[in-house]
Amino acid sequence: MEYLNYVIKGTSNKDLIPILKCIKFELTEEGLYLYSTNNDISIKTFIDKKDIESIDELGTFLVSGRFIYDSVKKISDDKDDILNIEYIADSKIKLYNSNTSYDLSSNIVSEFPDLELDNSENPIRLPKKLFKTIINQTMFATSQDESRPVLTGLNVKIENDTLECTATDSFRLAQKKIKLDNPVEEEKTIIIPANNLNELIKMLNDDDSNIELHIFENKIIFKLENLTMMSTLINGTYPDVSKLIPTESTLTLKVSTSEFYKSMDKASLFTNEREKNAIRLETKGNNIKISSNIPEQGYVEANITCTKDNDSDIKISFSSKYMMDAVKSLESAELLLMFDGDAKPIIVKSTEDDNLKQLILPIRTY
Amino acid sequence: MEYLNYVIKGTSNKDLIPILKCIKFELTEEGLYLYSTNNDISIKTFIDKKDIESIDELGTFLVSGRFIYDSVKKISDDKDDILNIEYIADSKIKLYNSNTSYDLSSNIVSEFPDLELDNSENPIRLPKKLFKTIINQTMFATSQDESRPVLTGLNVKIENDTLECTATDSFRLAQKKIKLDNPVEEEKTIIIPANNLNELIKMLNDDDSNIELHIFENKIIFKLENLTMMSTLINGTYPDVSKLIPTESTLTLKVSTSEFYKSMDKASLFTNEREKNAIRLETKGNNIKISSNIPEQGYVEANITCTKDNDSDIKISFSSKYMMDAVKSLESAELLLMFDGDAKPIIVKSTEDDNLKQLILPIRTY
Repeated sequence: MEYLNYVIKGTSNKDLIPILKCIKFELTEEGLYLYSTNNDISIKTFIDKKDIESIDELGTFLVSGRFIYDSVKKISDDKDDILNIEYIADSKIKLYNSNTSYDLSSNIVSEFPDLELDNSENPIRLPKKLFKTIINQTMFATSQDESRPVLTGLNVKIENDTLECTATDSFRLAQKKIKLDNPVEEEKTIIIPANNLNELIKMLNDDDSNIELHIFENKIIFKLENLTMMSTLINGTYPDVSKLIPTESTLTLKVSTSEFYKSMDKASLFTNEREKNAIRLETKGNNIKISSNIPEQGYVEANITCTKDNDSDIKISFSSKYMMDAVKSLESAELLLMFDGDAKPIIVKSTEDDNLKQLILPIRTY
Repeated sequence: MEYLNYVIKGTSNKDLIPILKCIKFELTEEGLYLYSTNNDISIKTFIDKKDIESIDELGTFLVSGRFIYDSVKKISDDKDDILNIEYIADSKIKLYNSNTSYDLSSNIVSEFPDLELDNSENPIRLPKKLFKTIINQTMFATSQDESRPVLTGLNVKIENDTLECTATDSFRLAQKKIKLDNPVEEEKTIIIPANNLNELIKMLNDDDSNIELHIFENKIIFKLENLTMMSTLINGTYPDVSKLIPTESTLTLKVSTSEFYKSMDKASLFTNEREKNAIRLETKGNNIKISSNIPEQGYVEANITCTKDNDSDIKISFSSKYMMDAVKSLESAELLLMFDGDAKPIIVKSTEDDNLKQLILPIRTY
């Protein structure tokens, strides 16, 4: 018996997991543990006994995730505040309140895999909000192309007191570095599947608590107050991207982040996937002209002002989609665009934060 | 030159029309007319000259609906309040404000069909809100199955001072009657494609103005203040449904509309499309038990109270989806369920309004 909303929160995320469709309920002296797994991700949540109205009998059962989620959801707006769960004869679970009852078939508990969600010895602790920011600022640059599996994941490198996250699909790259409170003894580099991080991010609320990262040989375990999630890791060696990042620039522009984003959005009307969403950027004095065209259909140009670090000008083409993704990841009011000619990667970064770098390869259009 | 939001409102609906992708702009002394058509639907809107900043030159042009819609949308949140539209050389239209300009190719105006959106002699006038209600209460019961085209439309029958709308997919039926302010001389019966009505409904706001229905041999024209829409009609004879509607009942139940809907929702967990969403309803005294089950998976029952017009009881199965659609269309706090045995159609109607009838065929489950 639990408070309804809490149960829903505990079960809803499981419904996303396709392979092993069951949720394991384990009622112990401390409270109710819920488990689910699809082998690629495993999730464990906990409802403390203080949030449970009463416990008559301890025990474990395994029940269809979709059915229990829908059952609880459908009766969750009844006036009844209490939901009863009972194990009855014939391997059936009865869920009921005063006017409605659901009988759900229970599966054999022993068939559910052992999830091995143990702690590691030296977890990395981060504020949850910071963790979310790092993931959101980098993960979008991972590749969707399964032919190079390592690029479909986020590379996390930990060395001394630095944690560095890198994502690239070989046309663009996002990299964020942060300082850790406690240096690690052993250098570690892992690749976490972007899909799994995406599921994790969806489950994180915005409170001020920490997240713990427990890194093992072939898996990573994320621990939060009432939630534990395991993700497998991607095997393989992540490319050494350090040489790709230009260290010099011949021209740096400073622009308003929102104005630049809006002008890209407007000028991208005549771009398309087939042409790699190519858009042109051209400076003249303190004006930036961004333009695109489709022959016989139309032409668009949008103009904004910028400040420059020298008098030179640039003409360059790149993907409007990649540039917009990069700009969206920045939190500052102004951003820097750093060019080293029209053939080298463009660096996009915040005026305030040197720890986040977005790289975009230019497109040759001539 | 127009106020931006107004232009967007004028163009957005056209973007839904797939076949003829262009919008025709006709700038006259009175204001700007916009036209679009896909042969099945034609739309005309009007922006009065008082809402246009200034008019330099009258004329007509034809331009890609998607491009002009997106262009206007993308610059609509610029601080500039005024959008300039200019016909320039080489059949190009220039749309611009202070920092952005779009050049769009213009097509040959003479290729756009003549829309023939004239008035009929005796249009039917209805409050727009009432018209929306009628459509929403009946249209969902039309068939999706193209093999009987007449059932994919809404049958509208006008006789003297009565307008009757009927929709049926042969498993359920929805019928609404209203009184007209002015009787018509000639009896009319037409079938309007449900898809077209759906597009129309999406364009109707909730103000207190009227809608005019102009009925012709092979089309209907809906006139609103700034919007005219033409729909083709479906050829064919609509089945005579009057004999299907039971005139007697052996048992009538009165239940709370929201409670009944909720109990159907809860009890439909173990229904599925393959089994026609079959759900059981069983009365015993003043209790209604609604239940469903899938063997080996689970069973659900939800109970609510009712009042009855006599002491008999009923056991009957029907589609939970159809019943929920029917219940949703009722506006009253309580509803009546009328049975004439377990093999005849169930009538669902409001306790307050006898002019709306929902019929649902039972499912034989034994």
